[in-house]
Amino acid sequence: MRKVRPGPLRKGDVIAVVAPGGPVDQGKLTRGLARLSAAGFVPETAEGLLRREGYLAGDDGHRAAQMEWALTLPEGRAVMAARGGYGTTRLLPLLDWGKAAARPKLLIGYSDITAVLAYVSTRLGLAAIHGPMVADLARQPDRRSLDAFIRLVGGQVTPREPWGLSCERLRGGAAEGLLTGGCLSVLTALLGTPYEPDFRGALLFLEDVGEPAYRIDRMLTQWVQSGRLRKIAGIVAAKITPVRSETEEEIRKVFASAGKRLSVPVWYGFPAGHTDPNYALPFGVRARIDARGRLFLLESPVAAT
Amino acid sequence: MRKVRPGPLRKGDVIAVVAPGGPVDQGKLTRGLARLSAAGFVPETAEGLLRREGYLAGDDGHRAAQMEWALTLPEGRAVMAARGGYGTTRLLPLLDWGKAAARPKLLIGYSDITAVLAYVSTRLGLAAIHGPMVADLARQPDRRSLDAFIRLVGGQVTPREPWGLSCERLRGGAAEGLLTGGCLSVLTALLGTPYEPDFRGALLFLEDVGEPAYRIDRMLTQWVQSGRLRKIAGIVAAKITPVRSETEEEIRKVFASAGKRLSVPVWYGFPAGHTDPNYALPFGVRARIDARGRLFLLESPVAAT
Repeated sequence: MRKVRPGPLRKGDVIAVVAPGGPVDQGKLTRGLARLSAAGFVPETAEGLLRREGYLAGDDGHRAAQMEWALTLPEGRAVMAARGGYGTTRLLPLLDWGKAAARPKLLIGYSDITAVLAYVSTRLGLAAIHGPMVADLARQPDRRSLDAFIRLVGGQVTPREPWGLSCERLRGGAAEGLLTGGCLSVLTALLGTPYEPDFRGALLFLEDVGEPAYRIDRMLTQWVQSGRLRKIAGIVAAKITPVRSETEEEIRKVFASAGKRLSVPVWYGFPAGHTDPNYALPFGVRARIDARGRLFLLESPVAAT
Repeated sequence: MRKVRPGPLRKGDVIAVVAPGGPVDQGKLTRGLARLSAAGFVPETAEGLLRREGYLAGDDGHRAAQMEWALTLPEGRAVMAARGGYGTTRLLPLLDWGKAAARPKLLIGYSDITAVLAYVSTRLGLAAIHGPMVADLARQPDRRSLDAFIRLVGGQVTPREPWGLSCERLRGGAAEGLLTGGCLSVLTALLGTPYEPDFRGALLFLEDVGEPAYRIDRMLTQWVQSGRLRKIAGIVAAKITPVRSETEEEIRKVFASAGKRLSVPVWYGFPAGHTDPNYALPFGVRARIDARGRLFLLESPVAAT
């Protein structure tokens, strides 16, 4: 598979902002846009970004049109989701992702946006950024992770720099593979569809929110039984907030058990996804986690200039 | 596929009671067992039925051993789950279901137990009963549905008798097919695994509990995108209790939208699953819903004697 790399994203560059999933709160959006602008980027919002139809930010046609606009905006260098929620999987059949890969822009987001990121990073060779979303920047105030994001999309991270924070070993040791993954429940909603990611050779990052341990277990069990994780290099789980009455220890146990069934290394606690700090992770690039739990990005998600 | 029919289940018959999923509450179990006994059945509980290991009723080996015992108990005529929860999908690879089909007993339960019911009814030709569970009988006090269950497993229901309560039309009209399905989130956890049900030709019954509309949408969208529902005859959705802040109307809309994408009839409101009354549904038998929303069971789940 040919690796597709967009150019670096720098101060002064236009970021197209879209809502492919749930409806966006105006106040949070405004604060997030201000923060992006303060960081030097030029956010441009899609028409009708604040539309609301139940749990969706407008109907499928409206959300697909936003995405189409963002993917083809001549001056746009990147596409960032305003927020997650639900709705991105509904758009997958409505857009020509192959065409998007031909004129690559950095796709940026997490949670529901995982549906696109995992698909394009494993099936189309496109680098994508599991990272901040505009309206979430208000509740993810950590300055270090925003700075790190800016350096990552600017192409300034080297393979010698430990990325984010160190993880805790749950099973096995070092692992190296194609970094991809995302929100477990969103990834699981792609299983059996034409948009199912190809995880062979993956260093699989997994995170989630609001899921009791038994559901994380059920989803991991589904992936294990599907045979689709037979050739992964290892699992890097995020730091996941337990639902009330449960402990993080129960979540660790579930991931360790999946790793045992798969005979792969499992690491826990990377600060990305529904957490603060939310360190950006480049999907579709090779990465390595060493025996001390330090993650190294072996490639850049953007082309050298 | 050869259709496998166990003999009828009558007063005086032994029902083996197992816990393949979540841990069982002793008080509810006792009340449920008393109710089964009062109905004339002879429940026999598996050894260690009340074991508890986190969200599971003991480890996989222990729960599989219970199921093995129940499937081979010489005097047992049926296997009924004590409750659902989570854990049944973990047992699927640990048991020889083909062997179970060779010495058929009625498998009875719903919710998590769907994992077995849908698999054996569509892949092994085995009739199974989406119906009561022992420890749930306390919160499903409806007497009519227990009486109906007794007549169904006794082989006394005829194809001329409207079954349960009439449904509400969401889309299209009459439909006829192999009745199967169950708890949507459990069925969805089988997608892509070797235990995925074969829904071609199915009259697909779907129910769930505690799922917001967007999640029901996400699961139905996954099934639609997977192509696995391309040949179903229609959907019969249960009466589903909305989560707080949502309405049943939002749930109806989600099912209607899935039916539209599939071009099949959709009916709503059958009283089965996480509801009271919980009318038993025989899986793996032909059934028909008419233009007035009345369900007719065209075959019996048990052999004539």
